[in-house]
Amino acid sequence: MNEFELIDRYFRRAPRNADIRIGIGDDGAVLAPSPGMEYVMTVDMLVEGRHFAVGCDPRALGHKTLAVNLSDLAAMGALPRFVLLAGALPAPDAVWIEAFMRGFDALAAEYDVELIGGDTTRGPRTFSVTAIGELPTGSALTRGGANPGDIVYVSGRLGDAALALAAAAGRTDVDAESLALLTQRLNEPQPRVALGVALRGVASAALDVSDGLTGDLGHVLAASRVGASVDLAAIPCADALRTKLDGAEREFALGALLAGGDDYELCFTASPAMRERIDAIGRALGLPLTPIGSITVDANLVINDERGTPLTALPRAFDHFS
Amino acid sequence: MNEFELIDRYFRRAPRNADIRIGIGDDGAVLAPSPGMEYVMTVDMLVEGRHFAVGCDPRALGHKTLAVNLSDLAAMGALPRFVLLAGALPAPDAVWIEAFMRGFDALAAEYDVELIGGDTTRGPRTFSVTAIGELPTGSALTRGGANPGDIVYVSGRLGDAALALAAAAGRTDVDAESLALLTQRLNEPQPRVALGVALRGVASAALDVSDGLTGDLGHVLAASRVGASVDLAAIPCADALRTKLDGAEREFALGALLAGGDDYELCFTASPAMRERIDAIGRALGLPLTPIGSITVDANLVINDERGTPLTALPRAFDHFS
Repeated sequence: MNEFELIDRYFRRAPRNADIRIGIGDDGAVLAPSPGMEYVMTVDMLVEGRHFAVGCDPRALGHKTLAVNLSDLAAMGALPRFVLLAGALPAPDAVWIEAFMRGFDALAAEYDVELIGGDTTRGPRTFSVTAIGELPTGSALTRGGANPGDIVYVSGRLGDAALALAAAAGRTDVDAESLALLTQRLNEPQPRVALGVALRGVASAALDVSDGLTGDLGHVLAASRVGASVDLAAIPCADALRTKLDGAEREFALGALLAGGDDYELCFTASPAMRERIDAIGRALGLPLTPIGSITVDANLVINDERGTPLTALPRAFDHFS
Repeated sequence: MNEFELIDRYFRRAPRNADIRIGIGDDGAVLAPSPGMEYVMTVDMLVEGRHFAVGCDPRALGHKTLAVNLSDLAAMGALPRFVLLAGALPAPDAVWIEAFMRGFDALAAEYDVELIGGDTTRGPRTFSVTAIGELPTGSALTRGGANPGDIVYVSGRLGDAALALAAAAGRTDVDAESLALLTQRLNEPQPRVALGVALRGVASAALDVSDGLTGDLGHVLAASRVGASVDLAAIPCADALRTKLDGAEREFALGALLAGGDDYELCFTASPAMRERIDAIGRALGLPLTPIGSITVDANLVINDERGTPLTALPRAFDHFS
């Protein structure tokens, strides 16, 4: 199968949406947002051996490759619309590509996201997704809007992905039942798209927790020129992780919870006046939205332990070059 | 230097243009085209050892990484506006990155293109650029508009990059003076942006010759459901290549000219009524726009040799998986 047959077979589709003037198959796709709307664009690159393991399930990888980008759009409050997919593959392995695209397409279909362009080449297995979302003019959730007194929330729970990864590597023990769920959280994260859209006009700042809470919340604090005081005991996590926080594996558990990354939950801030609206959003979505602390004038991130004592050394955020 | 310091130092800039509502540094960039305008989006991935050599000049590579994407926008008739850059690097080598970004930024500045987002990670050296251009609604040059009787043009000349590559590999000989120019054409191609914009409303179809004339013109013919008759002798090329067409290296020269790729010239079609306008565009841009044949009803690509006899076996287009 050559490059063009590969594109024809797996990547070419007829455009479904009216604001796609020209879809996949030309030198570029042509788009125009509806009146009163803006586009949001984001790009992520996933590298074999770094973001995903050699020999991993290609269907789950296809899902995750798209999910991490939709998570970025969700963090902006944008509704995902279009996606461009560039990929390097060591060989045109039809079985592998088909499975990858099955995972990619299933998630794309769930959010009505259209593939409008791409590029394929031979090389070390690498994917780069550019995702384009849409939102009403001026309604983007940024990192820079947090105000002193705002409450800090996280959706879902944190540390699942790091715990699954450590258990798979034999660095910690987790019971089989918990592990199955944790592994699915690691391999097939659900972007919080509906939450991001619901938070327009409600949250003062938002981002997705892809590199770990400490680092990601740190980006909000830096952009907003504020600090935060967070209660460790309030941060939602799996029981399997909570248990480890109280025992011999406390240091590992702190790392997973505060700097684990790869969870793709949203961390956001909102005025206390929004509390009831946020509770209602959480109920409507069936998604826990947990207050974990508050924004402070003092521009530091303080995480208080179970006895209210500030942690002295915060686990570091995931850094691709560390 | 960690990932975030790297982004801050080399990639973060304040937005310059009014239609960038939010620039680099958040989860996504926010854009809205001016009234009456549409966006064109394209993505390309460049892999070390495939699209560029290990140890190549990083400044030239930075130029080329952006140039190949601007070439796709040019082929759509779009004015380049924004770009997202994702890159995997084996290490955060500041000297290398600075040189790469010097080449990237110089070309971006030439076309007033703004970097609005990106991603960096560790991995085998790979770049993926998503370029966004703008054009008046409905004016995109596509591959599907060629009509029987239209003239087929190419800009500049073809085969330069393939000749430079072969000479560098010792597979053919080229005099030193020619080689310097050919090598620059290979390493620092100039996207035909002004030509693409000038061809709006003039060309009936267009694309950029990135994979070689035979294959790329074949895409126009397939999309337009037509054929073409092309005269080999009319295809513009370097004297160093023309000479080889007449000698013992004819087969190599045919391959370089017809299927060499990496030239980033535009191939376009236009009604014979547009001839004078096209000549005027070529004069205004100081760029040869050469008629090389015409579009036919019969849906085949025929390339006639110097005696008017159709070539029986056409060199194949570059295929990343062949």
